[in-house]
Amino acid sequence: MIDVALLGCGGSMPIPNRFLTSLLISYRGRKILIDCGEGNQVSMKMLGWGFKTIDVICITHFHADHIVGLPGLLSTIGNSGRTEPIIIIGPKGLNSVMNGLKVIVPFLPYELLIMENELNTYKLNIDKSRLSLNESNPEVIITTLNLQHSSDCLGYSLYLNRKPIFDPIKASNNQVPKIYWNRLQKGETIQIENKIYEPQMVLGTERRGIKISYITDTRPFTEIIEFVKNSDLFICEGMYGDNNDLNKAINNKHMLFSEAADLASKSEVIELILTHFSPVMGDPEIYYENAKGIFNYTTIGFDRLTRTLKFNNDK
Amino acid sequence: MIDVALLGCGGSMPIPNRFLTSLLISYRGRKILIDCGEGNQVSMKMLGWGFKTIDVICITHFHADHIVGLPGLLSTIGNSGRTEPIIIIGPKGLNSVMNGLKVIVPFLPYELLIMENELNTYKLNIDKSRLSLNESNPEVIITTLNLQHSSDCLGYSLYLNRKPIFDPIKASNNQVPKIYWNRLQKGETIQIENKIYEPQMVLGTERRGIKISYITDTRPFTEIIEFVKNSDLFICEGMYGDNNDLNKAINNKHMLFSEAADLASKSEVIELILTHFSPVMGDPEIYYENAKGIFNYTTIGFDRLTRTLKFNNDK
Repeated sequence: MIDVALLGCGGSMPIPNRFLTSLLISYRGRKILIDCGEGNQVSMKMLGWGFKTIDVICITHFHADHIVGLPGLLSTIGNSGRTEPIIIIGPKGLNSVMNGLKVIVPFLPYELLIMENELNTYKLNIDKSRLSLNESNPEVIITTLNLQHSSDCLGYSLYLNRKPIFDPIKASNNQVPKIYWNRLQKGETIQIENKIYEPQMVLGTERRGIKISYITDTRPFTEIIEFVKNSDLFICEGMYGDNNDLNKAINNKHMLFSEAADLASKSEVIELILTHFSPVMGDPEIYYENAKGIFNYTTIGFDRLTRTLKFNNDK
Repeated sequence: MIDVALLGCGGSMPIPNRFLTSLLISYRGRKILIDCGEGNQVSMKMLGWGFKTIDVICITHFHADHIVGLPGLLSTIGNSGRTEPIIIIGPKGLNSVMNGLKVIVPFLPYELLIMENELNTYKLNIDKSRLSLNESNPEVIITTLNLQHSSDCLGYSLYLNRKPIFDPIKASNNQVPKIYWNRLQKGETIQIENKIYEPQMVLGTERRGIKISYITDTRPFTEIIEFVKNSDLFICEGMYGDNNDLNKAINNKHMLFSEAADLASKSEVIELILTHFSPVMGDPEIYYENAKGIFNYTTIGFDRLTRTLKFNNDK
């Protein structure tokens, strides 16, 4: 189970009732934040999910509307009493951007682990009560995709692993002594003299986890479809609702509602949530049909929209 | 006449209905902004005073809650079509802080004139349709005071000059030819052969202008009294309402409501507006009497509180 909240759904500048686009994800009480624009702290406070438990912050790109709230948030997290490190992931240049922004928060009581997208894939599990990088037995896997914007920009996909169930028949067939079943089930590999027992010897088939994708800011392109394929939740920018704004979208490297819906349809996602609305678009709902006509399961995002995603027992 | 708006009245972090402390001043359609915390852009949008006409930005200090909104605001001002330079005043270190913050707004369509409080006094008038530094005939004079906070911090005082009225009897007594009266009245000095005619030869006595003072973050100290003396509006921090929080105020270098009111009383200001409330103080009104008991003309600030100040014809 995983909870997500859209902290804001605006692009360019915050306006009344519309802070800047950002997504907060909560898994077993620990948090992952994607982007941090102005106003995000206010939404977090309203949600009451807490600041101290933010373990990972993913930044799509360095335009002010996606990162300007970060120094303030880091300061607030410091004031909350956190001393454990925070992982910050972002495109190339992240180190120099963080060095710049840190001029106004020079003394944080915790370490920042800055990752200039060295890995493309970040395997995390809850270790020492927080989400940490860990190659073995990842519970959460974050992957990135290079987008097509006016600056280096990353799309993010988060996959919550679901453990296969224990299969006692398979364990017996593999002649695994019963005393090791529990440890193997938890993911441990056990060597007894020359014999190696591995988790898959006692576990059933893979089960589908939960996939959440976050794509902003970019023009649409084919690789996005594969990247967000079968997402349970596809949060995607829709800077312009009106199809007549195509040239604007092309020039500013953004998407129309209809383009986001087309990606959602081709990716066969379960739900599309549109976000990152142009500040001149007063009511995005006016253009709802431009997306819904292409992809039926579209929601127009709003600040503090939440979803709770559960494992699907049918798959 | 001058209009002021408190864009936010929070300290430390923005919370619902309380953005971070900042003051916007509008004079003849041009704007001076003091501090720029998170959420200030939203308040500006709600007020509808416009972004393009912000000519001067004064920063008290570099703690995130006073400056984190600046890169986003500069970006929005750029998007509004401004190409004229903006003056930014702040404590020593402003250049390096601005170089840091500019990593997320590297391409602004206007110049930033950074002033690390070289002058202590900034004389401005409206030249080429915007507020610019100008020693002669200043309409607005900004002065600074070094405060006592945990980092270098400046208090600001803004004085709106009021022109003396034209005095025809004085002009006649000074034997000023009538053809020069109008130019002298506008502040020009005229030399005709060996004879010099100066404005004061045709102008009456000085008239009181309008004074606005902005003091945050600091402990109270004697020099503040002289600095804010006789202000029409004294905007002052009141981080803590409860007098029992004195030790907190001392340790964190902030003020109690009662301390701010004491400064207001001793400075003989016309109105005190309290601001920069601790985020743990849910309703500052609860502690109103702690200030009002000392200084009767106290107002508890709130986001987007506005005042229009006019010249006082009695003085």
